[in-house]
Amino acid sequence: MSEFNFKNNIIHYEVYGEGKPLIILNGIMMTTKSWEIFKTAFSKNNKLILVDFLDQGASCRMTESYTQKDQVEVLRELYNELGIDKASLCGISYGGEVAIQFAIKYGDLVDKLVLSNTAGRTSPWLRDIGNAWNAAGENENCGQQYYLTAIPVIYSPKFYEDRLDWMKNREKILVPYFNDKTVMATIKRLVISAENYNEVNNLEKITAKTLVISCDEDYLTPMKEQNILKSKIPNSQLVIIPEVGHASMYEKPELWATLVLGFVNLDCNIKLI
Amino acid sequence: MSEFNFKNNIIHYEVYGEGKPLIILNGIMMTTKSWEIFKTAFSKNNKLILVDFLDQGASCRMTESYTQKDQVEVLRELYNELGIDKASLCGISYGGEVAIQFAIKYGDLVDKLVLSNTAGRTSPWLRDIGNAWNAAGENENCGQQYYLTAIPVIYSPKFYEDRLDWMKNREKILVPYFNDKTVMATIKRLVISAENYNEVNNLEKITAKTLVISCDEDYLTPMKEQNILKSKIPNSQLVIIPEVGHASMYEKPELWATLVLGFVNLDCNIKLI
Amino acid sequence: MSEFNFKNNIIHYEVYGEGKPLIILNGIMMTTKSWEIFKTAFSKNNKLILVDFLDQGASCRMTESYTQKDQVEVLRELYNELGIDKASLCGISYGGEVAIQFAIKYGDLVDKLVLSNTAGRTSPWLRDIGNAWNAAGENENCGQQYYLTAIPVIYSPKFYEDRLDWMKNREKILVPYFNDKTVMATIKRLVISAENYNEVNNLEKITAKTLVISCDEDYLTPMKEQNILKSKIPNSQLVIIPEVGHASMYEKPELWATLVLGFVNLDCNIKLI
Amino acid sequence: MSEFNFKNNIIHYEVYGEGKPLIILNGIMMTTKSWEIFKTAFSKNNKLILVDFLDQGASCRMTESYTQKDQVEVLRELYNELGIDKASLCGISYGGEVAIQFAIKYGDLVDKLVLSNTAGRTSPWLRDIGNAWNAAGENENCGQQYYLTAIPVIYSPKFYEDRLDWMKNREKILVPYFNDKTVMATIKRLVISAENYNEVNNLEKITAKTLVISCDEDYLTPMKEQNILKSKIPNSQLVIIPEVGHASMYEKPELWATLVLGFVNLDCNIKLI
Repeated sequence: MSEFNFKNNIIHYEVYGEGKPLIILNGIMMTTKSWEIFKTAFSKNNKLILVDFLDQGASCRMTESYTQKDQVEVLRELYNELGIDKASLCGISYGGEVAIQFAIKYGDLVDKLVLSNTAGRTSPWLRDIGNAWNAAGENENCGQQYYLTAIPVIYSPKFYEDRLDWMKNREKILVPYFNDKTVMATIKRLVISAENYNEVNNLEKITAKTLVISCDEDYLTPMKEQNILKSKIPNSQLVIIPEVGHASMYEKPELWATLVLGFVNLDCNIKLI
Repeated sequence: MSEFNFKNNIIHYEVYGEGKPLIILNGIMMTTKSWEIFKTAFSKNNKLILVDFLDQGASCRMTESYTQKDQVEVLRELYNELGIDKASLCGISYGGEVAIQFAIKYGDLVDKLVLSNTAGRTSPWLRDIGNAWNAAGENENCGQQYYLTAIPVIYSPKFYEDRLDWMKNREKILVPYFNDKTVMATIKRLVISAENYNEVNNLEKITAKTLVISCDEDYLTPMKEQNILKSKIPNSQLVIIPEVGHASMYEKPELWATLVLGFVNLDCNIKLI
Repeated sequence: MSEFNFKNNIIHYEVYGEGKPLIILNGIMMTTKSWEIFKTAFSKNNKLILVDFLDQGASCRMTESYTQKDQVEVLRELYNELGIDKASLCGISYGGEVAIQFAIKYGDLVDKLVLSNTAGRTSPWLRDIGNAWNAAGENENCGQQYYLTAIPVIYSPKFYEDRLDWMKNREKILVPYFNDKTVMATIKRLVISAENYNEVNNLEKITAKTLVISCDEDYLTPMKEQNILKSKIPNSQLVIIPEVGHASMYEKPELWATLVLGFVNLDCNIKLI
Repeated sequence: MSEFNFKNNIIHYEVYGEGKPLIILNGIMMTTKSWEIFKTAFSKNNKLILVDFLDQGASCRMTESYTQKDQVEVLRELYNELGIDKASLCGISYGGEVAIQFAIKYGDLVDKLVLSNTAGRTSPWLRDIGNAWNAAGENENCGQQYYLTAIPVIYSPKFYEDRLDWMKNREKILVPYFNDKTVMATIKRLVISAENYNEVNNLEKITAKTLVISCDEDYLTPMKEQNILKSKIPNSQLVIIPEVGHASMYEKPELWATLVLGFVNLDCNIKLI
């Protein structure tokens, strides 16, 4: 457990293992703790770095508004803190959006880039879904309502049903968590920090080899968004995980690890001759 | 404008044109008024019948709980009222669910069956999405919140963006509508009336020629649900409208009319020989 | 059974029924006889016009080379012969390609346009598939070989298996047909007449309301080609028939008729207001 | 370069690198030489084993007929020759079919299983496509014809066009190769050896962790076949490579290597808790 200071804000991060560095960037309601089941696999041949963004997990609670651009600078500072000059980035959803902006601004610092369930912009449609979440978080004791509004849609209908026990347990944990006003305030700020995100016209500047992971039952960042990433990012590859929703790393953890580690650790160019 | 009495409840219906009868069954938040732009086309060669279910439009507000099975009996009574012994049914979403249950119970009364954006059951996942809607309708002045929770997800992201003006106008109309406590109470009861719906194991009893319309950006009743309908309903056909969401009749009105009228009015058997 | 003279070549055509005229344009190995099972349905409310292109069916055998542009003029002459100044066109595959070129050149003569299993150009890949067919037709008694090379791939694997008896009967009819050198020569010329077809950059000139029918197991003119048609033809709609191959009108005859007749005979504009 | 004797037939194989053994199984027209561009990457952390089946590459030309069951025994003997008691298998197309049959019979010898562009059976449709290939190989100097019949359809239309120079070079190499009667005889026997393959009902016996790679423009073993593999093989995962055809390892070599190596070398169980 380590931390550093970013503009007077504490940033929490964790490092495991040795090897080519791989930084995992959280989705909006995730924290470093969300990656527990992946830690062994991801630190076996890599230096795995987990980090809580501003307003996430063990990092500081913010008092002022901010945008994803600030999270990009948090990530830049993390490089300094770790003393590394190149790392692979793997972001999911919100984390993928930060990864995109980082790769555009600090291309030299990015080895490989993995974008899972990520869009190149917050569309008007997605913005209003974010607004629905924030509206659900307005009232006292809104934990149950917030859960129902934001969580089922993150999973594919099949997973939700097949793993109903797991989901119900999740509900038991998340409802009191969402009932906590301080927590809810952080989630709302995180949602707001992404609402004007739009890097579609800058995607062509990304130089890193990029893997785009798309899921055909992702109802928050649908496959079309990843098709845009694939078509605009010059050196990119696209794979589709069928019958899986937005939270792909939980619905298919081994397959997700296969894709991320397989891509990050392949260090040959393989080309037709 | 006509009405009849169903167990002391007023049921509103409308009839236009002459020809083979075609009854259109509303989605959950729709009314007979929702079909305005289709009336000319649908009544040109058909007797078009529109109807408000219990708790919809100009039909009665309920005081007791009910299920979709009651809506099936409303529809049965409508046949009596109209003095018809066979009609084609076209239902979208909630209306398609009622149509399925009607076609299972009263197969002899159904000519052709069109199921647009319809599922064979309310899955646990969809049930919790319904619960989220109902939770969003709990508070005072919840119109804006309800709009954000229930409406954007009904449309494909592309339509929502391309027709943002239309959507924003829709929001202006719907927010005060949802703010009305009486209205909100009807919507909630309608949601509840569908929550235990499951006819997957009875689909094979449907004898009517059936057209299943599926949309590949339908995030409420995803394509998988229509694949189930197609595979279980013996005499069924499946078409997919690409890049369209749950409210397909508004996103692609002419194409939707093409499918419905083309299917209902084809009165030949065409088979390979 | 009627015919007219096109530059000293006999063109065979057939007319059935009365109503808005609808001209069906054959795929490459089809003739007016191929539409037998559709005649009743298509002539019920329409004047149905079937026609054999140059080198097809009961029309003349050619001695000189020609292109699809000549077939366009055959079609133009058919309008004269029939004394009609507007008709809907429905073409499948080769017939759809001719329909596209006609709609670009003679837009005023086209009411509605239906393009089933059609591409906007002959890609290098498709050209070499055509070359494989022509190579298979080179040898003496090549009927069996030609059948195997050109026919199974026209159908979806599922249809081929489900209707194996029908396919085997088809094989019995087609092998001697393909063994006929005169017939084979016509097919080869037809293939060659399409090999330089490319109207992708002219698709935007089509003014007719257009329905594009795409099939997700069409391995000759895959869905991507119809996506191009949809994106370039201004007033176009796209539907997908799932689990169906290139010969969609035989795999799903009723659904195919539903789409064509539904589209051609809808004569209202239906727009969101 | 090594070889061993299988029932008086020479089997050629090659071994590169050290680590967990990974045996690559060729598609029908491939040889150990086909994997040249992958050798560095695949032997970096693994003992890579390439092998020519009966009638392939530097292995013997057969004089008697055989089936894929014999290729399974060749593979079994290769284990003996190498003195290994467990290896991961990665097969593409024909090689995947042999891998499936091996994994059913010799489950204890299989570590991980990768099935790329593979079906669980030779359907009647695919059998007739094989028959078309064999018919194309009947005549003298059939190289050009065989190329046109069997090769373009192996690639996606987009790849064929984007890499037209590479394809034309391929044609230059393959036409004389296919003109060689001895070679053509081997290919025909290989096609025949697969024609009665059907293990759909035995797929449930596979115990190895399995990755199924499916490509959405694979027109020989379409996605449906991989859906069957996924649904029947108990411990299997499915990924889709979009816009790619049957020869996926050439169309997207780095992505293909990512998937294979990522899957084979992940040696943790990662499960939701």
